[in-house]
Amino acid sequence: MFFKEVETVKYEGADSDHPYAFKYYNPDERIGGKTMKEHLRFAVSYWHTFDADGSDPFGDGTISRSWNRMTHPLDKAKTRAEAAFEFFEKLGVPYFCFHDVDVVQEGDTLRETFFYLDKMVSFLKEMMETSGVKLLWNTANMFTHPRFVHGAATSCNADVYAIAAAKVKKGLEIAKELGAENYVFWGGREGYDTLLNTNMKLELDNLAAFYRMAVDYANEIGFDGQFLIEPKPKEPTKHQYDFDAATSIAFLETYGLKKHFKLNLEANHATLAGHTFEHELRVAALHDMLGSIDANQGDLLLGWDTDEFPTDLYGAVLSMYEILKAGGFKAGGINFDAKVRRASFTDEDLFHGHIAGMDTYALGFKVAYQLLENRAIESVIEERYESYTKGIGLDIAEGKTDLKKLAAYALENDRIENKSGRQEMLKAMVNRYLLNALRSEPARKEKH
Amino acid sequence: MFFKEVETVKYEGADSDHPYAFKYYNPDERIGGKTMKEHLRFAVSYWHTFDADGSDPFGDGTISRSWNRMTHPLDKAKTRAEAAFEFFEKLGVPYFCFHDVDVVQEGDTLRETFFYLDKMVSFLKEMMETSGVKLLWNTANMFTHPRFVHGAATSCNADVYAIAAAKVKKGLEIAKELGAENYVFWGGREGYDTLLNTNMKLELDNLAAFYRMAVDYANEIGFDGQFLIEPKPKEPTKHQYDFDAATSIAFLETYGLKKHFKLNLEANHATLAGHTFEHELRVAALHDMLGSIDANQGDLLLGWDTDEFPTDLYGAVLSMYEILKAGGFKAGGINFDAKVRRASFTDEDLFHGHIAGMDTYALGFKVAYQLLENRAIESVIEERYESYTKGIGLDIAEGKTDLKKLAAYALENDRIENKSGRQEMLKAMVNRYLLNALRSEPARKEKH
Amino acid sequence: MFFKEVETVKYEGADSDHPYAFKYYNPDERIGGKTMKEHLRFAVSYWHTFDADGSDPFGDGTISRSWNRMTHPLDKAKTRAEAAFEFFEKLGVPYFCFHDVDVVQEGDTLRETFFYLDKMVSFLKEMMETSGVKLLWNTANMFTHPRFVHGAATSCNADVYAIAAAKVKKGLEIAKELGAENYVFWGGREGYDTLLNTNMKLELDNLAAFYRMAVDYANEIGFDGQFLIEPKPKEPTKHQYDFDAATSIAFLETYGLKKHFKLNLEANHATLAGHTFEHELRVAALHDMLGSIDANQGDLLLGWDTDEFPTDLYGAVLSMYEILKAGGFKAGGINFDAKVRRASFTDEDLFHGHIAGMDTYALGFKVAYQLLENRAIESVIEERYESYTKGIGLDIAEGKTDLKKLAAYALENDRIENKSGRQEMLKAMVNRYLLNALRSEPARKEKH
Amino acid sequence: MFFKEVETVKYEGADSDHPYAFKYYNPDERIGGKTMKEHLRFAVSYWHTFDADGSDPFGDGTISRSWNRMTHPLDKAKTRAEAAFEFFEKLGVPYFCFHDVDVVQEGDTLRETFFYLDKMVSFLKEMMETSGVKLLWNTANMFTHPRFVHGAATSCNADVYAIAAAKVKKGLEIAKELGAENYVFWGGREGYDTLLNTNMKLELDNLAAFYRMAVDYANEIGFDGQFLIEPKPKEPTKHQYDFDAATSIAFLETYGLKKHFKLNLEANHATLAGHTFEHELRVAALHDMLGSIDANQGDLLLGWDTDEFPTDLYGAVLSMYEILKAGGFKAGGINFDAKVRRASFTDEDLFHGHIAGMDTYALGFKVAYQLLENRAIESVIEERYESYTKGIGLDIAEGKTDLKKLAAYALENDRIENKSGRQEMLKAMVNRYLLNALRSEPARKEKH
Repeated sequence: MFFKEVETVKYEGADSDHPYAFKYYNPDERIGGKTMKEHLRFAVSYWHTFDADGSDPFGDGTISRSWNRMTHPLDKAKTRAEAAFEFFEKLGVPYFCFHDVDVVQEGDTLRETFFYLDKMVSFLKEMMETSGVKLLWNTANMFTHPRFVHGAATSCNADVYAIAAAKVKKGLEIAKELGAENYVFWGGREGYDTLLNTNMKLELDNLAAFYRMAVDYANEIGFDGQFLIEPKPKEPTKHQYDFDAATSIAFLETYGLKKHFKLNLEANHATLAGHTFEHELRVAALHDMLGSIDANQGDLLLGWDTDEFPTDLYGAVLSMYEILKAGGFKAGGINFDAKVRRASFTDEDLFHGHIAGMDTYALGFKVAYQLLENRAIESVIEERYESYTKGIGLDIAEGKTDLKKLAAYALENDRIENKSGRQEMLKAMVNRYLLNALRSEPARKEKH
Repeated sequence: MFFKEVETVKYEGADSDHPYAFKYYNPDERIGGKTMKEHLRFAVSYWHTFDADGSDPFGDGTISRSWNRMTHPLDKAKTRAEAAFEFFEKLGVPYFCFHDVDVVQEGDTLRETFFYLDKMVSFLKEMMETSGVKLLWNTANMFTHPRFVHGAATSCNADVYAIAAAKVKKGLEIAKELGAENYVFWGGREGYDTLLNTNMKLELDNLAAFYRMAVDYANEIGFDGQFLIEPKPKEPTKHQYDFDAATSIAFLETYGLKKHFKLNLEANHATLAGHTFEHELRVAALHDMLGSIDANQGDLLLGWDTDEFPTDLYGAVLSMYEILKAGGFKAGGINFDAKVRRASFTDEDLFHGHIAGMDTYALGFKVAYQLLENRAIESVIEERYESYTKGIGLDIAEGKTDLKKLAAYALENDRIENKSGRQEMLKAMVNRYLLNALRSEPARKEKH
Repeated sequence: MFFKEVETVKYEGADSDHPYAFKYYNPDERIGGKTMKEHLRFAVSYWHTFDADGSDPFGDGTISRSWNRMTHPLDKAKTRAEAAFEFFEKLGVPYFCFHDVDVVQEGDTLRETFFYLDKMVSFLKEMMETSGVKLLWNTANMFTHPRFVHGAATSCNADVYAIAAAKVKKGLEIAKELGAENYVFWGGREGYDTLLNTNMKLELDNLAAFYRMAVDYANEIGFDGQFLIEPKPKEPTKHQYDFDAATSIAFLETYGLKKHFKLNLEANHATLAGHTFEHELRVAALHDMLGSIDANQGDLLLGWDTDEFPTDLYGAVLSMYEILKAGGFKAGGINFDAKVRRASFTDEDLFHGHIAGMDTYALGFKVAYQLLENRAIESVIEERYESYTKGIGLDIAEGKTDLKKLAAYALENDRIENKSGRQEMLKAMVNRYLLNALRSEPARKEKH
Repeated sequence: MFFKEVETVKYEGADSDHPYAFKYYNPDERIGGKTMKEHLRFAVSYWHTFDADGSDPFGDGTISRSWNRMTHPLDKAKTRAEAAFEFFEKLGVPYFCFHDVDVVQEGDTLRETFFYLDKMVSFLKEMMETSGVKLLWNTANMFTHPRFVHGAATSCNADVYAIAAAKVKKGLEIAKELGAENYVFWGGREGYDTLLNTNMKLELDNLAAFYRMAVDYANEIGFDGQFLIEPKPKEPTKHQYDFDAATSIAFLETYGLKKHFKLNLEANHATLAGHTFEHELRVAALHDMLGSIDANQGDLLLGWDTDEFPTDLYGAVLSMYEILKAGGFKAGGINFDAKVRRASFTDEDLFHGHIAGMDTYALGFKVAYQLLENRAIESVIEERYESYTKGIGLDIAEGKTDLKKLAAYALENDRIENKSGRQEMLKAMVNRYLLNALRSEPARKEKH
């Protein structure tokens, strides 16, 4: 047992002061025909939670996990997996996510790496079966190894491209074997450091070819999970090709790949691109491209990806609102792509972070659900755009007019009366929904 | 005569110290079969140069132009036009650009506004014929008037949409009448302040319908100039739908409008979106969407559109490099969407700003031309991506491979040798080209 | 009566759905020996609320207030004041704040301006006496008029400096006459646009001399209110000398002025400077320089001062925590330096904005009060720094050691054990305090 | 020999195309009574150049230096030092800079670490004597080791404070022994991650005590080099106490330490704080606190410290202008706190980077020198502030006036005439000086 100080984390209700209990996340509570567990589909990130050592560009690792101390790659990997599943089960999350290199370190050769991976996949499969914890998505890490210095599927070196292809092939086989519900691409180094040495056209063509081959191979082996692309504007590169939702969609559309992909959107990536998270979700939803989310939060006064655990209730409300409005998650879920701070180096901090994130999203979900149930925003919007449901507005909406007709109309109707946009009232309304949700929470339910 | 202190601005060469002479822009110098005038196609912005009064959110206007003092709208408009053409001719620019409201103020009714506009179009047409100065592009201002508070083609109010349509109809007729080489859309308020009151789907559908009607009407009246969309990420709105080049292209592609449009890219808008100007130009060029540019520069430590005259030589070199590489301007040109600072309130400052901008872009052009002539960057890139011209790389480029073949190859070829990206050397090379261009400039040519 | 649709805004409790009732701000509720009204000392900003017309750099005014339609300056000014006091009384705020030009427009000459001001001061005095509403602070606007294009007390033009002096002299006389509790300096144009034309040393010397003369004159006339400086890093200038709290304190210290001033800190100015609001408050408090606050909120994804009404509960909690920890307000208070959005152009929006802000700060206050009462943060910090209360740590704290002693100690004690910083747990704790405060609010108290 | 492909780098003049020759930096050229070598006092950073491995938060090291392959700490350290001095000599730089951990890795105990350091100091001393290369400054790294997770002199753990003290004690002894001309403090972790767990007052008091003890110990051992503090606003911490020049000065002034310190200013740190580099230099110079610089450049579209080699000529001109205006370097110099990009992993790139930086600063120096010689900016400023040399302006400057006198004057002199700030003209003037300097450079001087 690795987490001796923490027993199974239970729901105790809003008044609990137990440090390791949920105050708002009640997995079995049914809302709108589904349990919260089914709505939220929480996942733990293997890398941040079990691999990370707290190092940063100015400092060495501060975190030393007991499960990472063995020498042999497979021994270490298995011990780590045992810790991981103990954590999943104590936390009660239904899913986890990983990059290939998270579950076992690379070998000296690609062949050895794949050998290790195969061993670990069997091991994980067994643990998944025993525990019932499932794989939300897996992916191939194509940014950490020095060979990817110039990118992977956009490397200027065809041999690197081939290695990337081999890793994704293996990744898809793993996804199939473990029943992953999605397969993710995050192109951390698919971009450029300087345009002065970059053939952007060739790189984008190669990237599209790469995705196409992945789709083909998935079909070939019968992997029917959802492909996801995760946008990020920059960092580590100066520019990443999947800058944001709109850019990623433009790319997929240009290369005829749109129907095979959805997006995995991350809060902190959105803000690095100059957008709110809810904006990115809305854009994706408009294109029916909202797949899954990486829940975290950034510090908007810092210019890098801080990947903090989400504790901001507004962020949770507004993102869950977009997700619910788009129909809720299908194959996707809420993956905590979040890391404890470098200074939060104890194992207990992993629980503090995840419990905080899960409670925050649980409450955000409930508030968003109420907003939608009451059509609080919808009714405002319906009234606001009413002019498009009749007369000239309806003609516009139905494509039955042209500039000449509109101009003729305008010449007779140029005394405009607009209505207030009511932003202040709407922001206060969100606060009120937040407060009401809290006030209707049950008090402490049970003691453990 | 309005500009008594400045005679015709002549090219005097690099050693001139005449405040109102060009040191680098020699309009008649032939390079690569065309004169600099033909390559650069400079245009003056009517609004910044003849209308602006130097007000800012914290201060009243500091600029009082002698040509803006008459009372009657048409008298004032004609006097202003006379000043404008004196300025164009003294500066020797071949083009100008305007919004409808720049050339004459709006009347009390739309009808009166159009009456004024018709009068001014006749007046301008005559002055254009006399002077030979041409119209690079015109556009309709659909953001200043209070009626556009919620947008124009994305307003929640159909009556406002109709007025926008009427203005664009008139704008296209003006473009036709004055022989504009392009017609521009900048959707300053086509976006949102808060998602809480926004039906993004309806707004985007309406915007697309609007563009489609504009294309149809241009066909109907035989206006064959190029349609341009000018991206900007935000300001005045929280989010503008035409966020950047990639987003605008995605929108046009989604709605099947791509073939009718190109982009008018602005340096300061690029940086507000988190991109370099050259990035935006490269993205547009990849899609054959590079139309025209708004040359200016921002202050990257300030978070708003400062629209300064471009004096940064690096910016000019790198943007001209992208433009020349894409084949140079066709219908487009270099419009100075730049304003003298609020504290530079004299008429002479208008000359200082434009001369600085034109000399900067002239030198930038020459350096870029040399870079391309010598294939300085191209040869680096060719060598860098050489692996895609043979063997497995060629298979990738030609689409003749798949994940299985690539994986098999990779298993035998996993000892990667990458080459240095050489960013430092390349940046020094750009400096060297800049220096060499300067050193090969002729000394003072003539005195005036 | 100007605000016909709104009666006196009353406290109705958390469950009220009355659009014009307070849900959390209960002015007469006693907490810790004082009423909420006494703790929070809310003030309305004259300029944003009664003068602003909603114009922005890309658009004309959208707001037309009924009280601003008279022609004669004094008639208009008096009507506006009547609207203002109706608003103050309906909202139940104890304070207001103004710039000289807010209460009456400038005349053609300085003499005329002062004549108008004198008339209005008498008028306001009477209204203040009748209503009981008091003046939190006044100030002189030295940034809007074109004469201040190069600054006021840092202008390169001594004649402008003299005008600024005259305005501040008058401002202090007004402060004395109306019993202002503070007098504010915000140097909107005390900075530079470019270092290339700036004598920073002379400008700073002149600014210090200016402040010194103001202090002397206040003493001479017996004005004993608190002088406040309001930092802002930029906008409208490229750099404002009072960049942030630390910079302002450095300036005051350098010129021996520190004891005469405190700071008026604004949330949105803090974030523009790259700081959280609570950081600025903490820095000021450390120097006993925390005077008053301008409550609002910015949009951290936008690079300009948006001055939104504060609705973010976290901001309110964390700023009130710093204020209460520093002993609460003395002469200062909470001024809503916030404006309704350009699209929120109705008079009702003024109520929506202020009620949202007051409720937000009322809740923030309560949560902060609980945090302090329970020493929730204090006890964490006390334990965290415990090592400085004994042994070598105590020697350090008491200045009883030196490098040699410390090095000798370190050589024997180099096996360091640090404790977790617990950021995730602490953020969850803030959430818990916020949520508990909400849950313990009384339900609807009375109906009106 | 480590750098076989590069011989001694010589000055060849502007037309040289030798990749490893200086085009502008002519060390022996005399300007204003001193050689360029004496003016610029270039230094190489040990850490970026000889230790760094190109790792970043998303990737492992890409750089494998031949001199870092030995196993024993001292063997490796000595080999590295030999490479370093070969590099210094080939490049012809007069100075280098280091942190303690750069020259030899830490041992298992502090005692062992100091033992290694002592050995290496002897070794370095010998190499310095042989080569004539001197130490511009050294410092103690108090941010990389996990023990410094909560800071060093601001750690919440007194034992960590003691270790920091021991390291600085040793650092001062090294400085004394090697004749360092300065000793630097960069407090990379002297700040906070969250205010929620931070006792800012105690931390600042402790930091001041730490500096005081360092000053005392330097006096005790007779180290008479200059103490320098290097500001940075954030990264790795959320907030660093030495945020910028003004904040650092405020701190030193508050604690009575100002006379013992000057500042070591870095370009990229300035821009992260929202300032231009020239701003920071100007502020420091005003307080006679300009000590030394870390020359590099950031990418203003990226939110982290990129530490690129300086190739931007404008940056070099404007920073050298401030430095020369402040009287040039005394104990300070130009340290290249710059790293080759992760993708520039060859040893040759180290030369490309340094040559580019040195040529850039050499040209910047020459242009700045000409600007000052011609009083190009000074004469503009003199004229601009002329009003303070006579009449009421002189009274202001000499402190002979008060608000009453100024108000009386203003009432008679309220028709203001301001003059244009001429920013566009001044920016064009800087371009002209830059271009003229380039044109007057001698052609290739000698071939090697």
